[in-house]
Amino acid sequence: MISRAGARQLSTGSCLRQGRTVQRACVYRGTAEATAEMTGTMRSGVNEVTEWIEQHVRRLDSERVPLADAAGRVAAAAVAAVVRVPPADRAAADGVALRADETIGASGYNPLELRLVSSGAPPARGSAVIIAAGDRLPAGTDAVAALDQVQIGVDGRCEIAEPVGSGNLVERAGTHVEAGAPLVGSGQRLDAYAIGALAASGVDALRVVRRPLVRLVLTGRALAEPGRPLAAGGVYDADGALLEALIARDGGQAGPARWTAGDRAALAAALVDDGADIVLVVGGTGPGADDASAATLASVGELAIHGVAVRQCETAGVGVVPPATSVFLLPGAPAACLWAYELFAGCAVRRAGGRPAALPFRARPMALDRKLVSAIGMVDICPVVCRAEGRIEPITPFAEAGLAAALRADGIVIVPEGSEGYARDSEVLVYLFGE
Amino acid sequence: MISRAGARQLSTGSCLRQGRTVQRACVYRGTAEATAEMTGTMRSGVNEVTEWIEQHVRRLDSERVPLADAAGRVAAAAVAAVVRVPPADRAAADGVALRADETIGASGYNPLELRLVSSGAPPARGSAVIIAAGDRLPAGTDAVAALDQVQIGVDGRCEIAEPVGSGNLVERAGTHVEAGAPLVGSGQRLDAYAIGALAASGVDALRVVRRPLVRLVLTGRALAEPGRPLAAGGVYDADGALLEALIARDGGQAGPARWTAGDRAALAAALVDDGADIVLVVGGTGPGADDASAATLASVGELAIHGVAVRQCETAGVGVVPPATSVFLLPGAPAACLWAYELFAGCAVRRAGGRPAALPFRARPMALDRKLVSAIGMVDICPVVCRAEGRIEPITPFAEAGLAAALRADGIVIVPEGSEGYARDSEVLVYLFGE
Repeated sequence: MISRAGARQLSTGSCLRQGRTVQRACVYRGTAEATAEMTGTMRSGVNEVTEWIEQHVRRLDSERVPLADAAGRVAAAAVAAVVRVPPADRAAADGVALRADETIGASGYNPLELRLVSSGAPPARGSAVIIAAGDRLPAGTDAVAALDQVQIGVDGRCEIAEPVGSGNLVERAGTHVEAGAPLVGSGQRLDAYAIGALAASGVDALRVVRRPLVRLVLTGRALAEPGRPLAAGGVYDADGALLEALIARDGGQAGPARWTAGDRAALAAALVDDGADIVLVVGGTGPGADDASAATLASVGELAIHGVAVRQCETAGVGVVPPATSVFLLPGAPAACLWAYELFAGCAVRRAGGRPAALPFRARPMALDRKLVSAIGMVDICPVVCRAEGRIEPITPFAEAGLAAALRADGIVIVPEGSEGYARDSEVLVYLFGE
Repeated sequence: MISRAGARQLSTGSCLRQGRTVQRACVYRGTAEATAEMTGTMRSGVNEVTEWIEQHVRRLDSERVPLADAAGRVAAAAVAAVVRVPPADRAAADGVALRADETIGASGYNPLELRLVSSGAPPARGSAVIIAAGDRLPAGTDAVAALDQVQIGVDGRCEIAEPVGSGNLVERAGTHVEAGAPLVGSGQRLDAYAIGALAASGVDALRVVRRPLVRLVLTGRALAEPGRPLAAGGVYDADGALLEALIARDGGQAGPARWTAGDRAALAAALVDDGADIVLVVGGTGPGADDASAATLASVGELAIHGVAVRQCETAGVGVVPPATSVFLLPGAPAACLWAYELFAGCAVRRAGGRPAALPFRARPMALDRKLVSAIGMVDICPVVCRAEGRIEPITPFAEAGLAAALRADGIVIVPEGSEGYARDSEVLVYLFGE
């Protein structure tokens, strides 16, 4: 595993070569430093990448949006109630608003008769007002008799046959929320309930964290776009569609994907183009002759880390292009691309958008129905399906089933570098997919 | 509780009156039948409403969308892979493609030397091809030697110092997915992983369930729109914003809200207007003089159920307007509106859109940190917050805190009609908010 200091050296071009670098340079016609990391002894750990993200990716600035557009967004600052809720004392149910003290002594033998008046003016003593749930309590009244407590005659009068306590069926002003009371905190995700509570208290617009704009750069030469026929040796691009959906899930917005088709000049141009908050370069991350992504990033910006100790995405990398845009290098194989996104690029998208950087999955301890085998030396991401309550079973791994494993799985187990896996019936932490 | 047969009678106008109907009719100047249900003995149970929804709300028809627009949608039919993945045998890593049988006997003392040729033509015996991960395996070769298994010279030759097994580092055609293999099932929600897997197998468009178009009809007279000043006695409308966010959460789309401001003709017109899949009428559901929603629905369509045995939303109702559009009557008080949506209208929105009708919350047994008291006779929805691991505490109920209780709570406990609540340390099922 490479230290952060080591990674910085790499990124600034200092020489960190290993035994076979000379042979490799013949294949990998780019930065020999980046190649060196591919030897297996120099991969960075997951924590180093996530620490790099913490240092380099900040929550974005905010924008003001109407409340109607704020659902699902992240509040950029605390928001307080504009008005109290309820704004005034009001009836909690349909009924008759009256003065409670007038009803003392009322009974079936001695009913109190009140004159029904319109709700315009404050009712005089000896009168009452028909009131609907939610109506403001008329001045002078202090209680509501429910409809089943009162006999309403056809002569403009009503009868009360029991005493009504002061405040009966009255919602007091401000009992739900006082004006100025905090409703949502900075960084809080705005769900429907928050939107409703903000609307009730008179908030009609608020500042939310800007959605990160993410540029996708697809470097593959043999990628077929959706709907086009597949040439011999070509593959349909899965990464573009996959990443667009992942970015949307994480609160970002993907700009139109750039297809550079293995052209290094086009890749360099796409890297330094304006406007994006985060750039994802897909493909060309390996040590092969055609793998130009790391070298190109190093030439137009800074390559901070290349090579991570995760079996599913060991050629992933991170860096920066001017002015200070984070760039993530994602392997082109779709399952590798997926995990380089979920573990690294996705953290940056979520963090920039004000969401928690962690995997957006629910983690739950569950027991293994079969043993789970993992080779020591790298973090291993193992797809599993749920069996009986609280139990899981490993399925064909990403190396053999590709992206289809993610589709079939209910979740994953992340086996640390130093572990060879777990015995049957072990309790392991499962990250369950889905919302 | 009213039987389904009773509900049908009500909806067709048969007479089911109770003791105080004559007095009530004076206040509730609409269908006396609907009023009768408000007496408390005739409310429908939650199950009757959900059964009504099962009978009256069907999954909508489908529409074809590009894969790029399909994330979050529900597949209307099973989708199979168009092409196999990988489409051909390919290299699983960067390296050298060769004939495995030629490497038998290779060792450090007796290295095998191979001539490196370009990847255009099938390599002759005694030669090999430098290959990148994901490249199609050249005809005639059957294995890939990884870069750390091979010494690549500057003279157009390479040396192999160990045998390479046939199929080494080769991904066989179709091992991830065979052409025609089912990828997603009918009714499956399309997450990012499904989108990626579909793209990889050549699917560029598919049929998804149409999103239900939901019309909101806000009947309140004293509602202030967001951003307008609050008149005396007025309140800011929370229900419109709340419902729009809930409908979007559940996969529907809310059309522009209609504000009828207590005008019955406008309400009748809004009910029979064209185009919506589901109509939500907000407010005017009670037995008061101004409550016209149930009567208006009965006059222009069919009122099937009015009044439900749920304390938080007892004046909710359901019915139909021609041609066969489901109409939900939601109380105007925001917390009541919320629960009438979550328990009833939301089921219809989710079901019409092809999602599970159940509450979109995670249910988990947890222990009560304090006793939870509920009056017998109606279902009671009690907001709770999570305390120590696996424990919850009831908070100020919706009746006292309104929508703010939903904002403060982490979830709810639903206490059945026949229960007076639960003792401290009881284990209860908690519906946890959030995705």
